[in-house]
Amino acid sequence: MTSILVYSEAEGHRSFDDLSLLPSLLANKRNQVWVDFEGPAPEAAESLSRDFHFHTLAIEDCISETLLPKIDDYGDYIFLVLHGARTMADETFVTAEVNFFLGPNYLVSYHDEPSRSISQARERCLRGGPSITRGVDFLLHEILDAMVDHYFPVLDQFDAIIDQIEEEVFAHPDRETLNKIFSMKKEVMHLRRVAGPQREILNRLSRDPLKVISPTAAVYFRDVYDHLARITDLAESYRDLVTSALDAYLSVVSNRLNEIVKLLTIFTATLMPLTVITGIYGMNFENMPELHTRYGYFIVIAVMAAITVGMLAFFRKKKWL
Amino acid sequence: MTSILVYSEAEGHRSFDDLSLLPSLLANKRNQVWVDFEGPAPEAAESLSRDFHFHTLAIEDCISETLLPKIDDYGDYIFLVLHGARTMADETFVTAEVNFFLGPNYLVSYHDEPSRSISQARERCLRGGPSITRGVDFLLHEILDAMVDHYFPVLDQFDAIIDQIEEEVFAHPDRETLNKIFSMKKEVMHLRRVAGPQREILNRLSRDPLKVISPTAAVYFRDVYDHLARITDLAESYRDLVTSALDAYLSVVSNRLNEIVKLLTIFTATLMPLTVITGIYGMNFENMPELHTRYGYFIVIAVMAAITVGMLAFFRKKKWL
Amino acid sequence: MTSILVYSEAEGHRSFDDLSLLPSLLANKRNQVWVDFEGPAPEAAESLSRDFHFHTLAIEDCISETLLPKIDDYGDYIFLVLHGARTMADETFVTAEVNFFLGPNYLVSYHDEPSRSISQARERCLRGGPSITRGVDFLLHEILDAMVDHYFPVLDQFDAIIDQIEEEVFAHPDRETLNKIFSMKKEVMHLRRVAGPQREILNRLSRDPLKVISPTAAVYFRDVYDHLARITDLAESYRDLVTSALDAYLSVVSNRLNEIVKLLTIFTATLMPLTVITGIYGMNFENMPELHTRYGYFIVIAVMAAITVGMLAFFRKKKWL
Amino acid sequence: MTSILVYSEAEGHRSFDDLSLLPSLLANKRNQVWVDFEGPAPEAAESLSRDFHFHTLAIEDCISETLLPKIDDYGDYIFLVLHGARTMADETFVTAEVNFFLGPNYLVSYHDEPSRSISQARERCLRGGPSITRGVDFLLHEILDAMVDHYFPVLDQFDAIIDQIEEEVFAHPDRETLNKIFSMKKEVMHLRRVAGPQREILNRLSRDPLKVISPTAAVYFRDVYDHLARITDLAESYRDLVTSALDAYLSVVSNRLNEIVKLLTIFTATLMPLTVITGIYGMNFENMPELHTRYGYFIVIAVMAAITVGMLAFFRKKKWL
Amino acid sequence: MTSILVYSEAEGHRSFDDLSLLPSLLANKRNQVWVDFEGPAPEAAESLSRDFHFHTLAIEDCISETLLPKIDDYGDYIFLVLHGARTMADETFVTAEVNFFLGPNYLVSYHDEPSRSISQARERCLRGGPSITRGVDFLLHEILDAMVDHYFPVLDQFDAIIDQIEEEVFAHPDRETLNKIFSMKKEVMHLRRVAGPQREILNRLSRDPLKVISPTAAVYFRDVYDHLARITDLAESYRDLVTSALDAYLSVVSNRLNEIVKLLTIFTATLMPLTVITGIYGMNFENMPELHTRYGYFIVIAVMAAITVGMLAFFRKKKWL
Repeated sequence: MTSILVYSEAEGHRSFDDLSLLPSLLANKRNQVWVDFEGPAPEAAESLSRDFHFHTLAIEDCISETLLPKIDDYGDYIFLVLHGARTMADETFVTAEVNFFLGPNYLVSYHDEPSRSISQARERCLRGGPSITRGVDFLLHEILDAMVDHYFPVLDQFDAIIDQIEEEVFAHPDRETLNKIFSMKKEVMHLRRVAGPQREILNRLSRDPLKVISPTAAVYFRDVYDHLARITDLAESYRDLVTSALDAYLSVVSNRLNEIVKLLTIFTATLMPLTVITGIYGMNFENMPELHTRYGYFIVIAVMAAITVGMLAFFRKKKWL
Repeated sequence: MTSILVYSEAEGHRSFDDLSLLPSLLANKRNQVWVDFEGPAPEAAESLSRDFHFHTLAIEDCISETLLPKIDDYGDYIFLVLHGARTMADETFVTAEVNFFLGPNYLVSYHDEPSRSISQARERCLRGGPSITRGVDFLLHEILDAMVDHYFPVLDQFDAIIDQIEEEVFAHPDRETLNKIFSMKKEVMHLRRVAGPQREILNRLSRDPLKVISPTAAVYFRDVYDHLARITDLAESYRDLVTSALDAYLSVVSNRLNEIVKLLTIFTATLMPLTVITGIYGMNFENMPELHTRYGYFIVIAVMAAITVGMLAFFRKKKWL
Repeated sequence: MTSILVYSEAEGHRSFDDLSLLPSLLANKRNQVWVDFEGPAPEAAESLSRDFHFHTLAIEDCISETLLPKIDDYGDYIFLVLHGARTMADETFVTAEVNFFLGPNYLVSYHDEPSRSISQARERCLRGGPSITRGVDFLLHEILDAMVDHYFPVLDQFDAIIDQIEEEVFAHPDRETLNKIFSMKKEVMHLRRVAGPQREILNRLSRDPLKVISPTAAVYFRDVYDHLARITDLAESYRDLVTSALDAYLSVVSNRLNEIVKLLTIFTATLMPLTVITGIYGMNFENMPELHTRYGYFIVIAVMAAITVGMLAFFRKKKWL
Repeated sequence: MTSILVYSEAEGHRSFDDLSLLPSLLANKRNQVWVDFEGPAPEAAESLSRDFHFHTLAIEDCISETLLPKIDDYGDYIFLVLHGARTMADETFVTAEVNFFLGPNYLVSYHDEPSRSISQARERCLRGGPSITRGVDFLLHEILDAMVDHYFPVLDQFDAIIDQIEEEVFAHPDRETLNKIFSMKKEVMHLRRVAGPQREILNRLSRDPLKVISPTAAVYFRDVYDHLARITDLAESYRDLVTSALDAYLSVVSNRLNEIVKLLTIFTATLMPLTVITGIYGMNFENMPELHTRYGYFIVIAVMAAITVGMLAFFRKKKWL
Repeated sequence: MTSILVYSEAEGHRSFDDLSLLPSLLANKRNQVWVDFEGPAPEAAESLSRDFHFHTLAIEDCISETLLPKIDDYGDYIFLVLHGARTMADETFVTAEVNFFLGPNYLVSYHDEPSRSISQARERCLRGGPSITRGVDFLLHEILDAMVDHYFPVLDQFDAIIDQIEEEVFAHPDRETLNKIFSMKKEVMHLRRVAGPQREILNRLSRDPLKVISPTAAVYFRDVYDHLARITDLAESYRDLVTSALDAYLSVVSNRLNEIVKLLTIFTATLMPLTVITGIYGMNFENMPELHTRYGYFIVIAVMAAITVGMLAFFRKKKWL
């Protein structure tokens, strides 16, 4: 699905979907042109090459998935790959690649799947929203700002899960908690790998002297950079929290189990002398004087009780109980 | 609550709370003007835009909470976000964000909650204290210096808790100690995340050539930077101490428990042969010659005692006891 | 096996294998000459020195194996050592060193073993493929691009093995899983050591102002650099995943074993009081009133059952079961 | 205690203790003046301000303890904070802060406690030693050189303790060894925190173009830097050794204990079948044919012996013994 | 032992051992002079000062042991400290310090113990080898190249030991293996500390613009740098391998022991119910009907066998066996 959005002071906002109009629209330098390719459009690659004359490498990178974000400055235009994020039902998050070409009076966006940030921006433009009227660099800022803001629900979800994990760890840690910790660890690792390099890209967008981004727009990209810096900072702190939670889990589980084993061992050890005593008086020797005394049995029972009490007292004194 | 404090050589210190006076006060370049907005003041955002013409992005960042400290140089003024700290009753600490705009002859501070550093600075000014008379950059230094100094009670508290933890670890480590270690770890992590980036901000304040900070004032900001450097240095060393305490705890607890289990196992193993012997002479075979000897029983009891003594001697020789 | 491939606009592609033609071929600056030495060719060292006048050190490094990639800029030519990779049947991968000299109108490649990337490039050239016609720097790019692309099957294999390991760890971890984790760890470490330094070399190839690489070609080397950056990034993430898998393995195995030991200890502890009771009534005292009661035996059996049930209930209440 | 030491070519070495002479002594630029304040001298702060006109911040830092070393270049003079070290009886070490102001023809030293390095330097000067005659920068070098050299006995002590720890770990590790390891770890951490930042200060002293240090003296400060570099390098290696010793301790202790538990478990398991057998023939069934055989008892004893031998052989074959 | 070796185009190679000739030999700028001091020669320090006028600090560093390598550029000459290595019989390696002064037409080497690299270089020179004829900087390269190459046997030894350790770890890990791992760890740490800083020195030798090293010689020092880079790279990878081997050892040993303990616990638990049953029928109650049945004994034995089989089946089903 391809859509073209044009703004000029003279004619206001207009919307097209016929790529053959592009040459004439681009030729008029007063037009601000936004072309959006959604899904694997066969005509996209052709148009990028024929209408825009982009570098072959950039077009290849645009069509294929690159996983790492990038910014390539070709002088007259820049090529940008960034990744949006959204949370999934199973408490993970997925990323979606969006490619941009930003030229003096045009913005080209290319993405395989529908993107909330882009559709919202288009709607705002069609309703006469201001961004495109200030230039395509401001339009790009608006889209990137929305893409980065969509990371915050992911962070909120992480926050909630980590809180829950921490509570579980100290209250009732079980195997399920361990699974949660490990999958959270993977999610946080994923987030760091996704957000970190994008921060660098935004840093370059806002600081490098790029021909196609006006100094007034650069300040706004700086703001997006700050948001990404906060995201990576939070990701770092989540990583520390998850690692800490894992350490806590292992300590708590190990302590708990060791406590149980210790108690059971004490229990067994306390009963051990009793079996020896009963064993002694269960022997069949003919000549065992105690067996024939009147209160022998009761004395032995009393001795056994005394031993039990004595041992427990001993263990308690040693602080083993 | 909004308060305006003005100093000029001609008229000395004056205090207002009517924002409509601002344009005329600011117009007189001989005035040193300090405007303080406390709490979410609806008129604040309006005034920042109307009276000071600050950049929209800076105003947005000022009104909302940003978590990460920042310094943005807009040429005629700088925008600064920093965080103060105070200890809580439950041995944690909380931070509070304070935003500053520093211009050629004005300082604007904006904070949601009351700030000790700011109220103390205001009182000192009203009593004719010198800082504002040397310029608003010196006034900013006075406030920042107080904010940073308020971190030291937090550090002292940490110091005391870590000392207590270390003592507990070697004297009587229990589950409670583990909880303390983990919550201390979180507090120290928090402190590092808060103090580290602020140090960078102060570094830039004291080293970057900023139009609104005079070279004589920059030296003073260097001093604040030194304090923050010491705070981050201490935070690092606390982190090492807490990690070390956790390692010590795990070693000590594990050693202690293993010692107990070893002793109990030795105890059980020592009694095991006795049950076998009593078992043997408890068997009901008709033809068991020993049973009919006169001293059989006493000999067996003696043998059992000898085995017990022998095993304990063996364990002791092996250094297991 | 030595092969010479020459392209000139006038005469098109030609192929030789006689080194004595080299001086005349190189003398004509319109020729683009590619000399490939495969296997330890005794005449190679001689030719590198006599026909190309390369620096002694470079020739030595070329002939011997150097393990670390390198780029040496000698002004008129550069010397390059890089390593290709291919997967083995036993799920490991091996690297093969390829040395290059790139001059103004010649490329020399030297490798001990046959190289897929080089043979494919030669075939494409012989079939009239375009790369050498654009200059020897584009030819070098084509070969390096292929070498780097051959790393991706290695990464795919790693991906599959790590997935399998992760599944095994949580489903049925055994000694074999541990072996797999450790050998995977070694493989990933190997990959990082191989890919990381090569990325730096490619970075210099694409950014440094080198006399023998035209600016239009440098953009293409940038693309190879991006691929290597992605490889090292994936290698990093594999390392994290393997470390995480090892942690998970140790936790799961330890938990599992501890669970078993706990259950068995509970079982033993539950039976322990029973042996004490049976011991008591197995004693041979003359005066043991209970022995002569009518239902004594049945009562004792009932008590023993009650104790067992009671202890199990106690353990369950304590959440030990 | 305040002492003033003056050298001039004309009048040689002279010593005073009256601060009121300072202005005239400093006024003569041919004098090399060294003022040493020891202990919290109330007149010190006053003199620093009145006689030397040092910056307020520097004086404050000088009077109070700063913990972190620092160098501040005020153009006409530099302010320096460094820390000396000495070993204590309990195998720890303490540091003492020394503050310096170095001007064109004067050196001011300020320290709360007596300092060996400084008293030795004073004695050498009074006996006509050469350092002050070459300028106050050489005098500063002499003092710093002595301060840094006093770290080496600390390192030697560490060396000895670590050797002892390592021997203990493998020979007879006990709880005491663990305490030693942890306190050594703290000491080494302390040393790193003390020596590392000082190395940076010396680096700046020897490399930065400072007005008050002549190039010929800078070479000598480079030498002090080298000593500090060696100290930090040794501290790093001690840290590795201590960490390694801790790992070794934990492994050895755990292995040792596990060995004991394993042996005892084998012992118990070997006796277990015997108690079952004796139990069987201790049962009171009327119809138990074996009981009435002539050699039943002896056969059972033989069977029990055979079982014991067989189990031990089995364990030995399995390499469990 | 002191030896002087001189080369000039006019008179070829000559060898002396009389230090009093030095001034005249050095005065002739066409002479390339190499002075080698071996062992603590009392005349060395004197000659370094009198004949060469080296800086006092450099002479002190030369005479004493410095442990850290260094390069000091004094303009007319450089002072260099490096360390050679050789393997010992007990699978460790030792380093030996060699000091160099390189001037425009002289090289001074100073070392306490005999050095293979230096004696070989001297022999080659005396046999008319080329290095000194190209200048003393080439002579220095020849010596350093030999010193660095002597590290490779150390690395080969490490390689062999680590291979052996890895095999042992998985095949038959015992206490001895642990000792080997820890001593290997120390050796590898030692190697890293020795090789890393030397690489930096060689980096400066080959890159810094030094007056006494000609650009043609600098390329050769680059080659030595590459060798050291490979050594440090291998040292890093050995460190990873040893750490990995330690982790594997701990896992394998712990798993193995836990397996044994689990099996023994299962064994004990299986026999436990049998002792309870025999205990029951060993009780002396008068009224125990089962005792008087004809097949009671046999039924009980059968029940005991059934319980044993049933429990083993249960454990096997649970995958505990």
